[in-house]
Amino acid sequence: MKLLRYGAPGQEKPGLLDAQGTIRSLAGVIDDLAGTALSGASLAKIAALDPTSLPAVEPGVRYGPCVAGSGKFLCIGLNYADHAAETGAEIPSEPVLFMKATSAIVGAYDNVEIPRNSHKTDWEVELGVIIGEKAKYVSEAEALDYVAGYCVINDLSERDFQIERCGQWVKGKGCDTFAPIGPYLVTRDELTDPQNLDMWLEVDGHRYQNGSTRTMVYGVAMLVSYVSQFMSLHPGDVISTGTPPGVGLGQKPPVFLQPGNIIKLGISGLGEQQQLVVAG
Amino acid sequence: MKLLRYGAPGQEKPGLLDAQGTIRSLAGVIDDLAGTALSGASLAKIAALDPTSLPAVEPGVRYGPCVAGSGKFLCIGLNYADHAAETGAEIPSEPVLFMKATSAIVGAYDNVEIPRNSHKTDWEVELGVIIGEKAKYVSEAEALDYVAGYCVINDLSERDFQIERCGQWVKGKGCDTFAPIGPYLVTRDELTDPQNLDMWLEVDGHRYQNGSTRTMVYGVAMLVSYVSQFMSLHPGDVISTGTPPGVGLGQKPPVFLQPGNIIKLGISGLGEQQQLVVAG
Repeated sequence: MKLLRYGAPGQEKPGLLDAQGTIRSLAGVIDDLAGTALSGASLAKIAALDPTSLPAVEPGVRYGPCVAGSGKFLCIGLNYADHAAETGAEIPSEPVLFMKATSAIVGAYDNVEIPRNSHKTDWEVELGVIIGEKAKYVSEAEALDYVAGYCVINDLSERDFQIERCGQWVKGKGCDTFAPIGPYLVTRDELTDPQNLDMWLEVDGHRYQNGSTRTMVYGVAMLVSYVSQFMSLHPGDVISTGTPPGVGLGQKPPVFLQPGNIIKLGISGLGEQQQLVVAG
Repeated sequence: MKLLRYGAPGQEKPGLLDAQGTIRSLAGVIDDLAGTALSGASLAKIAALDPTSLPAVEPGVRYGPCVAGSGKFLCIGLNYADHAAETGAEIPSEPVLFMKATSAIVGAYDNVEIPRNSHKTDWEVELGVIIGEKAKYVSEAEALDYVAGYCVINDLSERDFQIERCGQWVKGKGCDTFAPIGPYLVTRDELTDPQNLDMWLEVDGHRYQNGSTRTMVYGVAMLVSYVSQFMSLHPGDVISTGTPPGVGLGQKPPVFLQPGNIIKLGISGLGEQQQLVVAG
């Protein structure tokens, strides 16, 4: 099942994408794709509906972020073996965890804003995990039971703010518009193996990233279990699981985003994103 | 004006503390101490009310977190000159920024939970700044206009998770119950100089921290302006501005929290907190 949120920023309504590619409104079924609407019981109820019984939404509507009410946006650093090899970094002995500000979340086709005084805004295609139920001290074996589904994420990063501005990565990771998520959330029943997905990213038609979740160091189940040892995960929380090789910082010489660039990215089964880069 | 939230966890109602120390309900006036209710216009409207016209709340009610709907919990590291001197660290050339998970927020008198596998849970009394209106690229001169008020924060930290577990500080800062805020928010009109406040923290009656916001390296106005250059601040966002000397990690030998400990802390004009430490 492909679930999404459509409409103007801040006024999104919940919907689903049917097999014919038509958005069907879930506005009368759930309040929003958030909180308890993401539970297994709620998703089963939606799955039991006949999509043709739901109102069709006019084509061309905006896709908002594919989940609402995200309390936390956690990211895993250096989680692809081939990306680690490319950068010469050692594979971390346990997952590297950092946070993005939830105020950075935008829709899959919204503009990406280069912050003022930025010279090193970079891209990262990542597999996103959307939490469906509260998870605290859960084992790896049961971890996926707490996942509502998956989505594409562009984990935009200002490398100067992140690395050269004194201290933690927050400054370069949480800038407004730095977290397009979607276009839709694919529920766990439809995407049963998150560890075998091709992923790619292009800027102005040039393919920079080409990878697969097969080379993830720490898989989704391990990551959900791992994070839940440090803090409770709640419905709507997002875990972005790291990026494969090919970020701008890794090019020789490095390449960074400029106003006017078009970023396209996608993950097999999870759809594609496209963003126009603009000045902040 | 002292604004607060009272009642059972997740069911808090907004209130104010009158001059006689009685909680008066704001339940009919604002939905919650969140979002637009924190704007200057909203706070002025509340200030114009006669507190005796508001229903008195029965004594002994729980104090919840003093603000709701916090999208971001930002913290400033190494921001007290005397704390930096104590640890031998250099004063950072610009503010060190990190994030706590908002799921760590609890009330001022709630229990603090030592996470499983923790051996180094530590305390930090800090001045908290609550954002009242959206701030993006604001100057230092206008920064305080975007502040709703101030509160006491205990920035609890697991030092092993924070420093020795591979990567960023998130793991040791975002644990559940690691962010008691309150008991109340003191509005900016009542606390006009945030840079002249005494602050202290005791564990089981032993005073470990004794400081003053006079020794802050980067003041509140600078910090609000600074953070707003990297990301938008929204109503309900919290900035915790760093801790003075005397944390457990700095003792010789280091001292960490144990189940059964009682933590008491306070800041002049902002009230006191007290937490019982329990096992997670």
